[in-house]
Amino acid sequence: MTEQPIDSTLAAPLETEAEAVRRCNRKFYRAFESLNMARMRAIWAEDGPVKCVHPGWKPIHGAAAVLESWEQIFQNTSYIEFELEEETVIIEYGLAVVSVVEKMRSASQGQTVKGVAHATNVFRKEGGSWRLIIHHAS
Amino acid sequence: MTEQPIDSTLAAPLETEAEAVRRCNRKFYRAFESLNMARMRAIWAEDGPVKCVHPGWKPIHGAAAVLESWEQIFQNTSYIEFELEEETVIIEYGLAVVSVVEKMRSASQGQTVKGVAHATNVFRKEGGSWRLIIHHAS
Repeated sequence: MTEQPIDSTLAAPLETEAEAVRRCNRKFYRAFESLNMARMRAIWAEDGPVKCVHPGWKPIHGAAAVLESWEQIFQNTSYIEFELEEETVIIEYGLAVVSVVEKMRSASQGQTVKGVAHATNVFRKEGGSWRLIIHHAS
Repeated sequence: MTEQPIDSTLAAPLETEAEAVRRCNRKFYRAFESLNMARMRAIWAEDGPVKCVHPGWKPIHGAAAVLESWEQIFQNTSYIEFELEEETVIIEYGLAVVSVVEKMRSASQGQTVKGVAHATNVFRKEGGSWRLIIHHAS
């Protein structure tokens, strides 16, 4: 008869929470790649403080203005893909911070661009699901 | 006989926690202005994930490398002062995120520079005090 070690059983819920945050973080980049506003809208918190800093932009505050900025980016992007590296997740109850390196390849107005940005993403748990409240990339 | 409203009594501990985070955030900028390494060292977490993104720099990971970067900045700065605006604090138990506009005036190698940066600062509570774990400015 085999026994499940007690430690791993106890640790399971916490691991799942970190994994849920990682999944939401990847979902954000998949939404960005899809250039689909409905998918991007589903990532962000609907109220409370929300901030987005796109590389080289001034920060944008509030859900409505942030979504408008994504609409503008999506309209001016024909293709974008991300490779994520050095992802670190810090969680404390209903707040999670993800630090990640964004390696991107994008096409806009016939020009292909390769670049690296560094992001700090903050997620807040709202009604059981993690929603993005800060995206700071530079 | 006057009575203390029950609500304000209950709210007091939470207000104090947000105020403690604001104080630590201001303390970080005062340490920066002091150009004093002992003061800057006292702001940062001593272990765990630590990240610092200075405007225009690649991100720096780990407490030792982050403190080294501050030493480098302090050696190349003769004067710096900050005015903070639009400070927003989000707290969840032992994790706090501060979003702030940094209006700065600095002098380096005889040149005076004025600038505005936008920062996302993440603090973690360690043994009863808030310590900086992420400074992302751009």
